[in-house]
Amino acid sequence: MSTISNVLAERYASPEMKKIWSSTGRIVLEREFWIAVMEAQRDLGISIPQQAIDAYKRVKDNVDLEAIRKREAITRHDVKSRIETFCELAGHEHIHKGMTSRDLTENVEQLQVARALALVRDRTVAALVLLGNRCAEYRDLVITGRTHNVAAQSTTFGKRLAMFGEEMRHALFALESILENYPVRGLKGAVGTQLDALTLLDGNVDRVQQLEQRIVTHLGFKNSMDCVGQVYPRSYDYEVVNALFLLAAGPSSLARTLRLMAGNETASEGFAKGQVGSSAMPHKMNSRSCERINGFHTILRGYVAMVSGLTGDQWNEGDVSCSVVRRVALPDAFFAIDGLLETLLVVLEQMDAYAAVIKAENEHYLPFLLTTTFMMSAVKNGVGRESAHEVIKEHALATVQDLRTRVIRSNDLAERLEKDVRLKLTHAQVEEILAQGRENTGSAGSQVDTFIASLEPWKKRFPTISNYRPKSIL
Amino acid sequence: MSTISNVLAERYASPEMKKIWSSTGRIVLEREFWIAVMEAQRDLGISIPQQAIDAYKRVKDNVDLEAIRKREAITRHDVKSRIETFCELAGHEHIHKGMTSRDLTENVEQLQVARALALVRDRTVAALVLLGNRCAEYRDLVITGRTHNVAAQSTTFGKRLAMFGEEMRHALFALESILENYPVRGLKGAVGTQLDALTLLDGNVDRVQQLEQRIVTHLGFKNSMDCVGQVYPRSYDYEVVNALFLLAAGPSSLARTLRLMAGNETASEGFAKGQVGSSAMPHKMNSRSCERINGFHTILRGYVAMVSGLTGDQWNEGDVSCSVVRRVALPDAFFAIDGLLETLLVVLEQMDAYAAVIKAENEHYLPFLLTTTFMMSAVKNGVGRESAHEVIKEHALATVQDLRTRVIRSNDLAERLEKDVRLKLTHAQVEEILAQGRENTGSAGSQVDTFIASLEPWKKRFPTISNYRPKSIL
Amino acid sequence: MSTISNVLAERYASPEMKKIWSSTGRIVLEREFWIAVMEAQRDLGISIPQQAIDAYKRVKDNVDLEAIRKREAITRHDVKSRIETFCELAGHEHIHKGMTSRDLTENVEQLQVARALALVRDRTVAALVLLGNRCAEYRDLVITGRTHNVAAQSTTFGKRLAMFGEEMRHALFALESILENYPVRGLKGAVGTQLDALTLLDGNVDRVQQLEQRIVTHLGFKNSMDCVGQVYPRSYDYEVVNALFLLAAGPSSLARTLRLMAGNETASEGFAKGQVGSSAMPHKMNSRSCERINGFHTILRGYVAMVSGLTGDQWNEGDVSCSVVRRVALPDAFFAIDGLLETLLVVLEQMDAYAAVIKAENEHYLPFLLTTTFMMSAVKNGVGRESAHEVIKEHALATVQDLRTRVIRSNDLAERLEKDVRLKLTHAQVEEILAQGRENTGSAGSQVDTFIASLEPWKKRFPTISNYRPKSIL
Amino acid sequence: MSTISNVLAERYASPEMKKIWSSTGRIVLEREFWIAVMEAQRDLGISIPQQAIDAYKRVKDNVDLEAIRKREAITRHDVKSRIETFCELAGHEHIHKGMTSRDLTENVEQLQVARALALVRDRTVAALVLLGNRCAEYRDLVITGRTHNVAAQSTTFGKRLAMFGEEMRHALFALESILENYPVRGLKGAVGTQLDALTLLDGNVDRVQQLEQRIVTHLGFKNSMDCVGQVYPRSYDYEVVNALFLLAAGPSSLARTLRLMAGNETASEGFAKGQVGSSAMPHKMNSRSCERINGFHTILRGYVAMVSGLTGDQWNEGDVSCSVVRRVALPDAFFAIDGLLETLLVVLEQMDAYAAVIKAENEHYLPFLLTTTFMMSAVKNGVGRESAHEVIKEHALATVQDLRTRVIRSNDLAERLEKDVRLKLTHAQVEEILAQGRENTGSAGSQVDTFIASLEPWKKRFPTISNYRPKSIL
Repeated sequence: MSTISNVLAERYASPEMKKIWSSTGRIVLEREFWIAVMEAQRDLGISIPQQAIDAYKRVKDNVDLEAIRKREAITRHDVKSRIETFCELAGHEHIHKGMTSRDLTENVEQLQVARALALVRDRTVAALVLLGNRCAEYRDLVITGRTHNVAAQSTTFGKRLAMFGEEMRHALFALESILENYPVRGLKGAVGTQLDALTLLDGNVDRVQQLEQRIVTHLGFKNSMDCVGQVYPRSYDYEVVNALFLLAAGPSSLARTLRLMAGNETASEGFAKGQVGSSAMPHKMNSRSCERINGFHTILRGYVAMVSGLTGDQWNEGDVSCSVVRRVALPDAFFAIDGLLETLLVVLEQMDAYAAVIKAENEHYLPFLLTTTFMMSAVKNGVGRESAHEVIKEHALATVQDLRTRVIRSNDLAERLEKDVRLKLTHAQVEEILAQGRENTGSAGSQVDTFIASLEPWKKRFPTISNYRPKSIL
Repeated sequence: MSTISNVLAERYASPEMKKIWSSTGRIVLEREFWIAVMEAQRDLGISIPQQAIDAYKRVKDNVDLEAIRKREAITRHDVKSRIETFCELAGHEHIHKGMTSRDLTENVEQLQVARALALVRDRTVAALVLLGNRCAEYRDLVITGRTHNVAAQSTTFGKRLAMFGEEMRHALFALESILENYPVRGLKGAVGTQLDALTLLDGNVDRVQQLEQRIVTHLGFKNSMDCVGQVYPRSYDYEVVNALFLLAAGPSSLARTLRLMAGNETASEGFAKGQVGSSAMPHKMNSRSCERINGFHTILRGYVAMVSGLTGDQWNEGDVSCSVVRRVALPDAFFAIDGLLETLLVVLEQMDAYAAVIKAENEHYLPFLLTTTFMMSAVKNGVGRESAHEVIKEHALATVQDLRTRVIRSNDLAERLEKDVRLKLTHAQVEEILAQGRENTGSAGSQVDTFIASLEPWKKRFPTISNYRPKSIL
Repeated sequence: MSTISNVLAERYASPEMKKIWSSTGRIVLEREFWIAVMEAQRDLGISIPQQAIDAYKRVKDNVDLEAIRKREAITRHDVKSRIETFCELAGHEHIHKGMTSRDLTENVEQLQVARALALVRDRTVAALVLLGNRCAEYRDLVITGRTHNVAAQSTTFGKRLAMFGEEMRHALFALESILENYPVRGLKGAVGTQLDALTLLDGNVDRVQQLEQRIVTHLGFKNSMDCVGQVYPRSYDYEVVNALFLLAAGPSSLARTLRLMAGNETASEGFAKGQVGSSAMPHKMNSRSCERINGFHTILRGYVAMVSGLTGDQWNEGDVSCSVVRRVALPDAFFAIDGLLETLLVVLEQMDAYAAVIKAENEHYLPFLLTTTFMMSAVKNGVGRESAHEVIKEHALATVQDLRTRVIRSNDLAERLEKDVRLKLTHAQVEEILAQGRENTGSAGSQVDTFIASLEPWKKRFPTISNYRPKSIL
Repeated sequence: MSTISNVLAERYASPEMKKIWSSTGRIVLEREFWIAVMEAQRDLGISIPQQAIDAYKRVKDNVDLEAIRKREAITRHDVKSRIETFCELAGHEHIHKGMTSRDLTENVEQLQVARALALVRDRTVAALVLLGNRCAEYRDLVITGRTHNVAAQSTTFGKRLAMFGEEMRHALFALESILENYPVRGLKGAVGTQLDALTLLDGNVDRVQQLEQRIVTHLGFKNSMDCVGQVYPRSYDYEVVNALFLLAAGPSSLARTLRLMAGNETASEGFAKGQVGSSAMPHKMNSRSCERINGFHTILRGYVAMVSGLTGDQWNEGDVSCSVVRRVALPDAFFAIDGLLETLLVVLEQMDAYAAVIKAENEHYLPFLLTTTFMMSAVKNGVGRESAHEVIKEHALATVQDLRTRVIRSNDLAERLEKDVRLKLTHAQVEEILAQGRENTGSAGSQVDTFIASLEPWKKRFPTISNYRPKSIL
């Protein structure tokens, strides 16, 4: 029977992310970890022949997944089968001394998580830089700002994009903070008391601490936990998966907004050469990549739900009801965010805005977009704020009605307001409001500048990474 | 780079479930669907040469996933690339006439879902039958019933198991009801109006209905939807995934309770020959399979969360923000429930109860288990219910305290109650309560019988299926 | 300190739903249950003086929540405090004999659930009837069908609405099925074995069954469970909450689509007299009710997540880690669906479609909406399907580009196709496609009729209920 | 009809938390905000008479919720009705100038969130200090450490508690980090461009920044957002609710473990004077508070699911499909964590461990707890690690079997190992292992010390807060 492949990995993830989570790669990481422990133990006085260590080193890349699987079918213990396989290959029995399975797996999995987090961070930086470029490009492209999906006030397309960018940058800080502070479990033994390591090292606390430090350094971490059981608390895993979900929020809102704009033909995610929108309707240019980004966001929410089920459910020093869940949710959440970022990068590169359509929309709504300005002017003329609001609402609703029924073809709200004496608006005032209003987007431009400037430290810190582009996506 | 495999499929699912969802199998299902449509169209008057149909039939099992993938990298449209590949193989362009992509994919996916549901139903029946056998075996094994995890009243182990069985049987009815009523989308065209099928068949409504009926029959469904858009509502998918989750509830409570019993050594999930409990601690016999069942339950909750994000989110006649989510959640939810049921079957076969330990526990708690009986007797003696409750509570708490501090070694609550005149209990009454109480489990036995009898119709309906056993699990 | 009120109940729910879940009403239901049990016990031979029963009956509506609360602060047991309060009021100690707390609370809560489900069913019927009326009204209003949020093919607004109606009707069947089959727990005692009821009735199994039957009848249920523990499995609660969530899916997609249409000004949810859209922008007419419907859908998803955490987590014969969760999630989920349905009814009454705007949109997109028809014609002319697709795509994309850049003002795709010899389209063919295409919506009309007809049985079954209208909403 | 109260607030939350979220308190916060804006505007040159400001100040605490509600029934706009009510009370129309509703509500809600977060932080510190005291008390109480719920190795009860404490402390850091960095939205106007504030202040950017700064200071925040739309991204809300959920993880695992220990009678959550465990069974002492903690954890997971549905779903500059969700989820999530912490504090105060029962358990399992030590000794004697593992497993499984069938009454594994020559264990070695093993818990004690020391900075920073105790809980 053919293998069922992981669709998130094989269809959407980048080669770099797949490498971190590959079965073979994982086995090698474990073996390197065992070797590091042996070398540290030897240096701390345990009698382990150099010849044995060398033997293990020689065979460490010799991974036969099928052989391990067959052995596991008997032992029904995954780690035990990997110990035995490695020992048999090397012809020695010196690994895993003073260790329990979790001394191996927890640490190696945290290593995978840390590497994957760093990759996500890098891709996010690349996406932010690309997004910053788009913000600059569209900094002054005036669009009809919408709230509740209907015309509200003018803003710029650059500002609209920067809004999602700021949200994403905020999530990046959160992810970076985890990456900086993430503590590794370390060699804590069967119930977390380091008993076997202490026994092995003749009860010498100092040497146990040295062993622990050697291992933390081997893994490349800064901190290790103090009080754990057999496993580290699964709320640490939750934090990680959750950070990926948070990171997906900004891109997801950006994608959803692009899908809305495509519906009005003011923007699109772009359309590659040779692409087909629909197998039936040749004219279709669908926001498939943006829809996919929204899909990844939904997927990540599912993995958050999975891992959330592991938190607060530890029995005593630990159980492994989490095992199958973590096998699925940890790699798959990373494949999903990786696929999302790859897709986002493509969208940011290929997206387009249609200035002519945008301009027509702005003209259609212009007097509506300025109702607050008309109201402010009336207030300055001495009219009460709430009274002015009521009068303008009356005319605006009538104008909407006439436009929708095609009684009028173009928006004449400004004339109606000018004619209504209750507002005390002069012709000159109205003209000025319209003239200035057309291009007035308040602080939009300077807000965009602030956003772009905020990316500079990231660009400097990761000069090459910020130029990353995915090869292509399906 | 090596392929990342789907861990749920490869590590836990049965070959039958993998077959339903394999990439190659899916392509063949699609091609058979296209051929069925062509044949129906030809019969209804569309000019399609028999030679073309034969050509398609000849190459339908000739699936080259890599070639399809390469083409998709250009079209960025999965169905279009599969159309082109199949046409190229056959040397004709006659498939997919009057169809949109979703006329193909929605129907084929619903076919996969229906087949997978039927498989889950079969495995559930097998598990229920096995569980029924265990209920019979332990029908009269008196155990200390526990609520809030502390001793409450006597029950039997058979009754405890039947409790989870009844929950599971209830969920099976719900699943069966979906399987019976699940409607297929049918050939509804690009926005659900059947426009292109009508055009193709010269606007003849009757012939369109015949075409639809032919296809529904080809797929093996009883019902089709009337008013849909490009896609069918994703709440139908949600119903399916949710039914799987509901089905996992009973087994998950059973597994959790076995884990608790293992902690008191009153029962265990069994331990296979050669199995290893811990790579560090040779004495360990862990409830790994039960923990795994709980893990699958948690995983299914995550897929419910994913698919729930697709409901209520349809834009107009449909969008495909659901696409990537369904690619992941539909097969993976089925792999998870399949893995759960395989594991459950093994647990039900290998589990064990320890009568000697159980008996010791019963003796230790006996007078506590009978406090309601003492109270009822006092009430019959004319004592107020709430007054009797207060007096018995006073003595029971004191007895607990003395047991926990080893002031006493065995439970002497009965003597204390007899001595307290407020309860008006005679020596004979107390003796009788203790004598009868030891084996009195109320209706437990007859409840077990009722449960077992309720499985008979399923056994008759599926005589061979109910004997299914998994080959082995990791 | 003032009371914090339940915002879902007080701001959104109907008086009928609030009544079902009020604290006082719940106490009265419990007391009526105790009285029913006493009367049944008396009839079955237990010595309970009529005078005592009368005393309880006299005070049953005398509910002082604060007094109960004060007593609970001492006992830390909610049911015990309610027993004592009721006994003190009546001056007797005859209730709750042979019962455990859950014999009271599980049954009374299931009674609340059943009544609330029936109310939801009624409101759903009312909403479906109103929706059916709208489908009839807009049966033939041709609109631009959209997939991926961009123009696809023509459909009618009535068909679009019917699509969401069919989804809702499907969910109603599921809810009705629960209502029909929902089993009550019954009087099963402390660990589910009916031990105390048996003791009280001298071990007479028949009389215990009679007692059980009397109670099930008092509650108005058809079925009771056989094998339960102290509690019934929480997956039954999950089924209920989940049915509410499923019911919200159709309305939520309808609401989302109306919000999209409001963005194009083709439809709106209506705007009440005196209503204000924005405190700042007087011209705003927001889809606030539709947004609220989407909000309720999201809320329900949260309650599904809560209750899902109770499934598969039963320890032995039961624990009460579910207690606080059910206190929150059961009533609040019903308040949320009730608020959703009230809001939906208002939207269905007040919504509006703008024929002139719709017509302009149709004209703008017409040739695009007909690309499949052009393709079918080309195929009939002997062109290969995929070749025709390619040619039409080429022209369509160019036309889109020219429209977006205002190189052209109106859609001239038809002329371009006519000119391209590769498609072999004659002028007459093109003219005919355009002429017929303008009003051709395939089976849309008859699909609407089918949907409306499917509501007839519900209207007949609930003639008055289907005319229900909410008084008003905030 | 009586009001339905919020069960989380009224039954479980502390008065301090209720105060933050009360309806009346919220109205006052809003009015104070409007007054602060008016004063700042006046100082920046807007003509607002001092007399008007004074009039508003005089009536600001005069809150009539029913009057506001009636007005909202007409306007269908909550903020507009509150503006009008406040203006009518004051007899002026000077508030809300240059503001949109969200300039009011977003900021006031963030203020509520920040205050509630600070309260949660305080309570968490109190709980950690109390937990630290318990860790000190039980630092050296040796218990049978369990993994997979079965005996593994010795640890101490203090260490077990510290494990959950460290997890909780980690979550506190995360919560503190949000509290430190949480940015407020500020006065950004209808679509986030500050257009109306600029118009009001004659386009003077400096003065707009001063206005913004005044407001941020009034609210007590350090940071404000730069690029937002009408609303701030809902992922900020998600971060907050999620931090509460993370905080619940450690207490939930602690509670679950206490429930398990209660099942073995090694510990309990305590039992208050007058408390009733069961209305039926007088002897019951249930872990109701611990179960409640687990319930709150499940509830919080539901609110996380709700708020997660708001992330990544922003349309353009914002919509309010989030409105009803936030009204429910934000206060209720805080009530739930508050109730959890109150309950936890009570458990930490009243919990108990039973040394005599614990000791008996330790003796029963002692040789099992030392299997790794026997194995290490065998390895030192020159036996291969995996070979020793196999031999010990063989004897251990046989011993377990004999104990469970009562073939033996006490654990004789040590003698069996000594007799097996394959392990090369001398009598002296075995004796020494048993003698030292009884009290040997590795680094458990020093790990506890490290945990306790880590709380010192918190105690110093919050000297009074760390002594907080809840008055009582239901």
